[in-house]
Amino acid sequence: MSLTFFLIASIIISFLAFGLAACLYAWVKKLPVSNQRIQYVGGLIRRGANTFLTREYIILAKFVGVVAVLIFVFLPTPIWKNSITENLTMALAYIFGALFSAVAGKIGIQIATIANMKTAESAKTGIRNAFMAGFRGGAVMGMAVVGSSLLGVSLIFLITGNTTALLGFSFGASSLALFAKAGGGIFTKTADISADLCGKVELGIPEDDPRNPAVIADNVGDNVGDVAGMGADLFDSNVASMSAALVLAVSIDKSLGGAVNAGMVFCYAAIGLLASIIGVATARIGKKGDPTRALNSSTYVTTAIFGILTALATWVFDYRWEIWGASALGLIVGVVIGITSDYFTNDNKSPVHKVAKASESGPAFTILSGISYGFLSTLPALVGIGISALGAYKLCEPLGPGYAMFGIAMASVGMLSIVGMIISNDAYGPIVDNARGLAEMGDLGDDVLEVTDTLDSAGNTVKAITKGFAIGAAGLTVIALLGAFISEVNQAATELGLLDKIITGFDVMNPIVFFGMLVGVAIPAVFSAMLMLGVNKNAQRMVSEIHRQFREIVGLKEGKKGVSPDYDRCIEIGTHGALKELIPAGLMAIILTILVGFIGGVQAIGGFLTGNIVSGLLLALFMSNSGGLWDNSKKYIESGANGGKGSEAHKAAVVGDTVGDPFKDTAGPSINTQITVVSLVASLMSTIFLTMSIFG
Amino acid sequence: MSLTFFLIASIIISFLAFGLAACLYAWVKKLPVSNQRIQYVGGLIRRGANTFLTREYIILAKFVGVVAVLIFVFLPTPIWKNSITENLTMALAYIFGALFSAVAGKIGIQIATIANMKTAESAKTGIRNAFMAGFRGGAVMGMAVVGSSLLGVSLIFLITGNTTALLGFSFGASSLALFAKAGGGIFTKTADISADLCGKVELGIPEDDPRNPAVIADNVGDNVGDVAGMGADLFDSNVASMSAALVLAVSIDKSLGGAVNAGMVFCYAAIGLLASIIGVATARIGKKGDPTRALNSSTYVTTAIFGILTALATWVFDYRWEIWGASALGLIVGVVIGITSDYFTNDNKSPVHKVAKASESGPAFTILSGISYGFLSTLPALVGIGISALGAYKLCEPLGPGYAMFGIAMASVGMLSIVGMIISNDAYGPIVDNARGLAEMGDLGDDVLEVTDTLDSAGNTVKAITKGFAIGAAGLTVIALLGAFISEVNQAATELGLLDKIITGFDVMNPIVFFGMLVGVAIPAVFSAMLMLGVNKNAQRMVSEIHRQFREIVGLKEGKKGVSPDYDRCIEIGTHGALKELIPAGLMAIILTILVGFIGGVQAIGGFLTGNIVSGLLLALFMSNSGGLWDNSKKYIESGANGGKGSEAHKAAVVGDTVGDPFKDTAGPSINTQITVVSLVASLMSTIFLTMSIFG
Repeated sequence: MSLTFFLIASIIISFLAFGLAACLYAWVKKLPVSNQRIQYVGGLIRRGANTFLTREYIILAKFVGVVAVLIFVFLPTPIWKNSITENLTMALAYIFGALFSAVAGKIGIQIATIANMKTAESAKTGIRNAFMAGFRGGAVMGMAVVGSSLLGVSLIFLITGNTTALLGFSFGASSLALFAKAGGGIFTKTADISADLCGKVELGIPEDDPRNPAVIADNVGDNVGDVAGMGADLFDSNVASMSAALVLAVSIDKSLGGAVNAGMVFCYAAIGLLASIIGVATARIGKKGDPTRALNSSTYVTTAIFGILTALATWVFDYRWEIWGASALGLIVGVVIGITSDYFTNDNKSPVHKVAKASESGPAFTILSGISYGFLSTLPALVGIGISALGAYKLCEPLGPGYAMFGIAMASVGMLSIVGMIISNDAYGPIVDNARGLAEMGDLGDDVLEVTDTLDSAGNTVKAITKGFAIGAAGLTVIALLGAFISEVNQAATELGLLDKIITGFDVMNPIVFFGMLVGVAIPAVFSAMLMLGVNKNAQRMVSEIHRQFREIVGLKEGKKGVSPDYDRCIEIGTHGALKELIPAGLMAIILTILVGFIGGVQAIGGFLTGNIVSGLLLALFMSNSGGLWDNSKKYIESGANGGKGSEAHKAAVVGDTVGDPFKDTAGPSINTQITVVSLVASLMSTIFLTMSIFG
Repeated sequence: MSLTFFLIASIIISFLAFGLAACLYAWVKKLPVSNQRIQYVGGLIRRGANTFLTREYIILAKFVGVVAVLIFVFLPTPIWKNSITENLTMALAYIFGALFSAVAGKIGIQIATIANMKTAESAKTGIRNAFMAGFRGGAVMGMAVVGSSLLGVSLIFLITGNTTALLGFSFGASSLALFAKAGGGIFTKTADISADLCGKVELGIPEDDPRNPAVIADNVGDNVGDVAGMGADLFDSNVASMSAALVLAVSIDKSLGGAVNAGMVFCYAAIGLLASIIGVATARIGKKGDPTRALNSSTYVTTAIFGILTALATWVFDYRWEIWGASALGLIVGVVIGITSDYFTNDNKSPVHKVAKASESGPAFTILSGISYGFLSTLPALVGIGISALGAYKLCEPLGPGYAMFGIAMASVGMLSIVGMIISNDAYGPIVDNARGLAEMGDLGDDVLEVTDTLDSAGNTVKAITKGFAIGAAGLTVIALLGAFISEVNQAATELGLLDKIITGFDVMNPIVFFGMLVGVAIPAVFSAMLMLGVNKNAQRMVSEIHRQFREIVGLKEGKKGVSPDYDRCIEIGTHGALKELIPAGLMAIILTILVGFIGGVQAIGGFLTGNIVSGLLLALFMSNSGGLWDNSKKYIESGANGGKGSEAHKAAVVGDTVGDPFKDTAGPSINTQITVVSLVASLMSTIFLTMSIFG
C-alpha cells in the first residue's frame, strides 16, 4: 500500500476519534445536575480553570510568537543561507504543534469541569452510572489528544513531506507541554499547599470550606495539572515518538527507495488509535462494580487489539515481523514498568506499609524510608527500558543499516500505542476526585460519598501505573530522538559537503562527549530544584493574598451570608506566579543546551543528551514513585493503620505527603517534558552546531 | 633520572612522613590530662573505637581472605590458563592493599582517641595550644595514610614492575574503604539516632548523659566514621588515582621505550606528599587565633609548594609542561569544587538562610528547600569536573597517543596531591568535636567551652570543603580508571590475539553500551537506599537494646552511683549490625557488575561504568551537600535566627538534620567508594569479560 493510503487512513481514524469524543461529550453533557450547590461550586471551578488556561495561553502565545520568529530566522539554517520557504514551513509547523496541543487541552478542561458535576450527581443512582460519567469524561480528553496528535503529524507529513518540519511540530507540542505540565504542576501544588496552610492549619476550617479564598484554586489545580498537564505531556511524547520514528524511517526509505517504513509508522500509529477507540467505546463496569478492574480490563483489551491488529497488518502488508516484535516488546515493557511503579506505591504492598511503620518514629524516618524506596524503584524500570531498547535494536539490526535505531523508535511507538486509553484513565482521576469534593459540598449523603470514594481510590491506583508508563515511554522516545538527532546531523553534513563530520555515535571516552554528559546529568536536577523552589515562592505569594482577604473582606472569616472571597484573585496569583517561576527553569535548560552546543559541537550535544536522558529517567522515577509512596502511606494510615488519623505516625506521614506533592505532581513528571524539549532543541539546531562551535 | 630513583625517593619521603607522624604522635601524647572524668570517658571512647575496629577487621579479614582466594583462582586469568605466580602476586597485592589501609586507619584511631582528651585539657590554656593538639592529632592520620599509600604503590611497583598487580593493591584498598566508610557510616548514624531517640526524646536527658547506654557508641561513631572512614576513603582514591596514572603511563612508556612517564607519576606524587609534610610541619595558628584561617592557610601553603616544586621538577627533569598544566588544573578545580560545596553549606551564605527561613513553615519545607539546593549544588561541581577532564585531555592530546587520557589521570593525581593536608584537616574535625563533648562532661567551665566551640565550628566549615574535594577527586579518578580499564582490555586482547576486540571507546549509540549505562545509573541510587535502610534497621536493634538495659539494670535510669550501663553491648550491636547491613549493598554492586559483564561483555561494562560514574557523582554531591546544608541550618537557627532553639523552625530543622545525617555521613560519601570498587572489579575481570559474555 502506498504511503498516501496510510496517511489518509490515519486522518480518517483521527476524525473517528473526534467523532467518538463528540458523542461522549454530548452523552456526558445531557446527564442531569439538579443540586444547586454543586452547580455553583462546579461553576466556580470551571471558571477558574478557564481563567488559568486563558492566562496560560496568552503568555504562551507570546512565547510561541517569539520562538516562531527565531525559528523563522535561524532554523533549520539561518535565513540568509537558506530558502525562506523551508524556514517558514518550520515556523508554521512549530505554531501548529503548540496550537493542536492547546486545543486538545482546552477540550479536556471543558469536559472535565462538566463531568465532575455529572459524576457527583450520577453517584446518587449507583456506581455504574457514576463510573460511566467519569470514564467517558476522561475518554473525551483521551480521544481529543491522540486524535489531534495523529492528525497533526499526518497533515504535516502529507503537506510538507519533510521530517524536519515534523521536528518543528513536535517542538511546538513540547513547548506547550512544558507550560502545561510544569506550569500546571507549579499552580496545582501552590494552591494545594496555600489552601491547606491557611485553611486547615491556621484557621482550623475543613478542607473544602468555601470561605477559604484558595479553595477553588485548589480544585482548579487538579484539572489543570492532571487533565491539561498530563494530556499535553502525552501529546508531546506521542508526537515525539512518531516524529523520531518517521525521521529514521524516511532516512532508511531514502536509501532503499519507496516509503514502506514511513507507511508502517502511520499504520501502527493509526491501529493504536483505533484500538483505543474500541477500548473506550466498549468499556463497561462489571456487575460487582469494581472500577479499578473496569479501567484495567479496558487497558488490556486495547493492548490485545493493538497486538492482534498490528500482527494482521504486518501479515497483510508484508512488513517485517522483527519490527512488529520490537513494537510488541515496547508495549509489554511499558506495562511491566507500570506494574513496578504500582508495587512501590500500592497500599497493599510492602513499601507503603514500611513507610507507614517508619512514620511512627517521626517525620525524618518517613522521609528517609520514602527516599530509599524511591531510589530502589528506579532499578527495575531502568533495566526494563534498557532491555526493551537492547531487544528492539538486536531484533531489527539484521534487517539492514538504520533499522536497529528504527526498531527502538518502533518500540516507543508500540509503548505509546495505547496512549489514548492511558489518557482516558488518567483524566478519569481528577474528574472523580473533584466529584468527591462536590458530593461533599453538595451534602449528597454518605451513600453517595461511599460511591465517589470507591471511584476516587481506583483513580489513584491507576494513576501510579500511568505515571510509570509515561516515564518509560519518554525514556524510549528520547533514545529514539537521539537517533533522530544523528540522522539530522548527517543529513545536514551531507548537504553541506562536510563529509568528515558525519557521525556514527558518541564515544564516552571522547572528553568532549564526557564533558557534555556531565553537564547534561545536572540539568534535570537543577530543573527540578527550580520548579520546587518556584512552588515555595509562589505559595508565599498566595498565602499573603489569603491573609489579605481575611483581613480586608468584612465577615469572611465568620462565614457571614452573602460574603464570599475573591477566588479569582487567588487563581490569578497562582497562574501568574506559576508561569513566572516556570520560565527561568525552561530557559535554563534551553540556554545550557545551546551553550554546550556552541562550545563542544554535535559531539558534546550527544553526550549532553545522553546524560540528560539517564539522569532525567533516574530522577523522574525516583520523584514520582517516592511521591506516590508518601501519598498512599498517608492514606493507609488514615484508613486506620499505625495509629490512624491524628496519631504521631499520621502527622509524620502528612509531612511526607507534603514533600511528595511537588515531587510527584510538579518536578517528577515535568522532567519528561524537559528532556524532550532539550532533545528537540538539539535536533533543530543540529546544522548550526555542526558549523559553529569552539571545540566541535 | 631513572624510574628507580623516583621509586627510592618516594619510599624515602614516605618514611619522612612516618617520621613526622611519629614526632607529632609523641608530641600529642606527652600533653597532660589531669581531669579524671575526661580520662574516664575518653578511655571508654577509646576502648569502644578499638572494639569496633577489631570487630570490623575480623570480618574484613574473612572477606579479604575469601576474595584473595577468588583472585588467586581467577584473576587476572583463570589459574588453569595462566602461571601461578601472576595470580599469586595479584592476590598478595590485594591483601597488602587492605592491610596498609587497615594499619593507617588503626594508627589514626589510636591518635584521635588520645588527641581528643589532650585538646580538651589544652583548651584550659587557650586556643593556640588546643588548636595545635587537635591539628597535630589529625596530621598523624594524614601522614600515616598518605605515607603508606605512596609506600605501598612504590613497593608493589618496585617488586613486581606490574601494573595489573597495582590494580590488585588498589582493589584491596577499596575493599577496606567500603567497609570502613560505608560500615563506619552506618555505625555512626545508628548510634547517633538511637542515642538521640532514647535519650533526648524519650527520657529527656541531655545529649552526652553517661546513663545513656548508646552515648559512648555515639562518640565512637565520630571517630570510626570521620577519622577511619574518611582516611580509608582517601587512601583508596589516592591509590586508585596513582594506579590509573601508572597503568596509562606504562602503556605509553612501553610504546616509546623507557619509563619517563611512570617516573613522572612517582615524582609528582612524592612532591605532593613532601608539600603536605611541609604544610603540616609549618602549620601555626595566627595571633588572632582564628582556626579556620589557620587550616585554610596551611592548605594554600601546601598547594603553592606543590605547584612550585612540580614546576621545578618539570624544568629540571625536562618533563612536558602540558602534563604539569593538567595536574595544576586538577588541583585548582579541586579547590573550586570545595569552595562551591562551602557556599551551599556555609551558615553565612544564602542557602542556609533560606532553608532556615523555610523551616518556619514546617519540616516539609525544610526538606523540600534542602533537596532543591542540594540539586542545584550539583551543577557547578559537575561542570568543574567536566572542565578539568576536558582541559587536561586537550592539553595533553597533542603529545601523542595515550597522552590525552594520561593527562586526565595526572589531573586527578594533581587534585589528590594535597590529600595529606586534606586528611589532616578532616581528622581534626572529630577530634575537636569529641574534645568539646569531653570538656562539657569534665566540667571545664564556660571559657574552655568557648574555645572548643570555636575549634569545632572551624572543623565543620573545613569538613564541607574536604567532602566536596573528595568527591571531585573521586570523579576524576574514576574517569582515569575507565581509561585504565580500556588499557587493560586492550593489553589482554593483544596477548590473546583477539585483535578484533581491541576497543577505542564506548559508543552510547551501541545499545549494549546504553543498556549497561542504564543499569549503571541505578546502582548508586540502590546502594544508597540499602545503606540508609540499613541505618534504619540497625537503629531499631540498638534502640531495643537500650530499652532492655533501662529495664533490666537496676538504678540505671535514676543515675544511682556506681551503676553504669553496658556500653560495650551497644557498640557490639552497632558494629555487628553495620557490617551485616553493609555486605548486601556491597555485594549487590559487585554482582550486578559481574552480571552486566557476562551479559554484555566489555562494551556493556564501559557503559555501566560511565552510568555509574555520572549518577554516582550526581547523587554523592546532592546527598553530601543537602546533608551539610540541613546540619548547618539547624545550627544557624540554634544560634538564635528564625526563632532560635525550641521554636517551630528549630523543630523542623531538627527533622532536616536527622534526614541529612545518613545523607552526608552514610550514603553520600560511600558512593565514592562504591564507584571505585565497581571500576576496579571491572578492570580486574577485563580478560574474563573479554572472552566470556553472551552479547559481547
